[in-house]
Amino acid sequence: MYLCSMKNLTIRRTIRQYSNKEVSQELLNRLMTDASRTQTMGNLQLYSVVVTRSEEMKQKLAPAHFNQPMVTQAPVVLTICADFNRTSTWARCRKAEPGYDNFLSFINAATDALLYTQTLCNLMDEEGLGYCYLGTTVYMPQQIIDILELPKLVMPMATLTVGWPAEEPPLSDRLPLESFVHEETYHDYTAKDIDTYYIYKEQLDENRRFCEINQKETLAQIFTDIRYTKKDNETMSSGLLEALKHQGFLD
Amino acid sequence: MYLCSMKNLTIRRTIRQYSNKEVSQELLNRLMTDASRTQTMGNLQLYSVVVTRSEEMKQKLAPAHFNQPMVTQAPVVLTICADFNRTSTWARCRKAEPGYDNFLSFINAATDALLYTQTLCNLMDEEGLGYCYLGTTVYMPQQIIDILELPKLVMPMATLTVGWPAEEPPLSDRLPLESFVHEETYHDYTAKDIDTYYIYKEQLDENRRFCEINQKETLAQIFTDIRYTKKDNETMSSGLLEALKHQGFLD
Repeated sequence: MYLCSMKNLTIRRTIRQYSNKEVSQELLNRLMTDASRTQTMGNLQLYSVVVTRSEEMKQKLAPAHFNQPMVTQAPVVLTICADFNRTSTWARCRKAEPGYDNFLSFINAATDALLYTQTLCNLMDEEGLGYCYLGTTVYMPQQIIDILELPKLVMPMATLTVGWPAEEPPLSDRLPLESFVHEETYHDYTAKDIDTYYIYKEQLDENRRFCEINQKETLAQIFTDIRYTKKDNETMSSGLLEALKHQGFLD
Repeated sequence: MYLCSMKNLTIRRTIRQYSNKEVSQELLNRLMTDASRTQTMGNLQLYSVVVTRSEEMKQKLAPAHFNQPMVTQAPVVLTICADFNRTSTWARCRKAEPGYDNFLSFINAATDALLYTQTLCNLMDEEGLGYCYLGTTVYMPQQIIDILELPKLVMPMATLTVGWPAEEPPLSDRLPLESFVHEETYHDYTAKDIDTYYIYKEQLDENRRFCEINQKETLAQIFTDIRYTKKDNETMSSGLLEALKHQGFLD
């Protein structure tokens, strides 16, 4: 047996229920500072974090996250943004002409923001803090842009609701390593591979129950027909591309 | 004084020179498995990792990374990809109709891939392994797609060159916390803010020397005129958007 060098990583859970215990500004600032050791493009740190603690702002943000209760119930909500505004302002203050109003620059800044976010998540796990990563951030980004008053070249990428855990949910399953690692070139999946890799997930009691409740024949149909449908994806893709144009990252 | 809960994070460096010591498959597999505890969209794990160890494949990949020497000199090169192909194949094998050939789905899978990448980086730091994150992955993605034989709905997002460190470069500077954290709403930067936040970086010997060598008046001009120019960004934005279309993520 071995021990993972990050002691809490292998037992981490998404935490959606938080205790009343405060998340101190000091602790949060320390973790946000440490997370900034993460590598970034040209060491430019192309991200910003908007910290929400006020009840009023949480109430405003909630609809943009489909009113998931964590947004209003967590003591702290963090919105991590791809940010080429600060760097561009720096350039303009220094007789330099920034050229970051384009799609590559968005991807570069989004990358910096997401890598930073994940180091922060790993730090919170090691500290015993609970969090929930809200993927909804990119579903209706224009709402978030308006609420947080994000200027051009700033785009919300990730939201974390943060607090001390008041639940201990079961560990969730993962696909086996072989299912996502490819040696030298990508080897596409046969029907037999799919059976091998997904059978564990499909046979879990919880997932079988999901299918029964939703009257679906297969677990995959839960994802394609209910949770992440083509129609929703296409509608939200349009909104996301529109927001990227509005923020100046796309023509 | 406090100790960071991840003992090596605050002293991490990008490592570009590697010793001859092998990076064992066992160690790498353990780290790649542990990293998969990272949260993902609907627990679908929308990523794949292509592992390059062969000399021939490193030689092929090098030009796509502007022939940075780490690609051929590192014992292992990892290309982490946004992957909706595996999930879509699963769906088709299970009488479900996948609807992930759109931009939102690309961003969702890219997010999963980048969060996974960063947990892997943090694990490597804690293990004492060295790595360099190559941002060039999204500069000429079509080359990488062709070399690694990535099918539709798979997009390379990050490359890590990995090996045991054979150098100990100085720690790099970081902007102060106040420069990237905003309370409740985004507060745009004044010229005075910029002075406060960037003066430390600008006054570093190394950065002053950069300006002299390149005959530039300001450090910002090094970035806008040499390292990340508008012209290059626009050219590479087109290539990146083309690759996203080619991979089926954009109309």
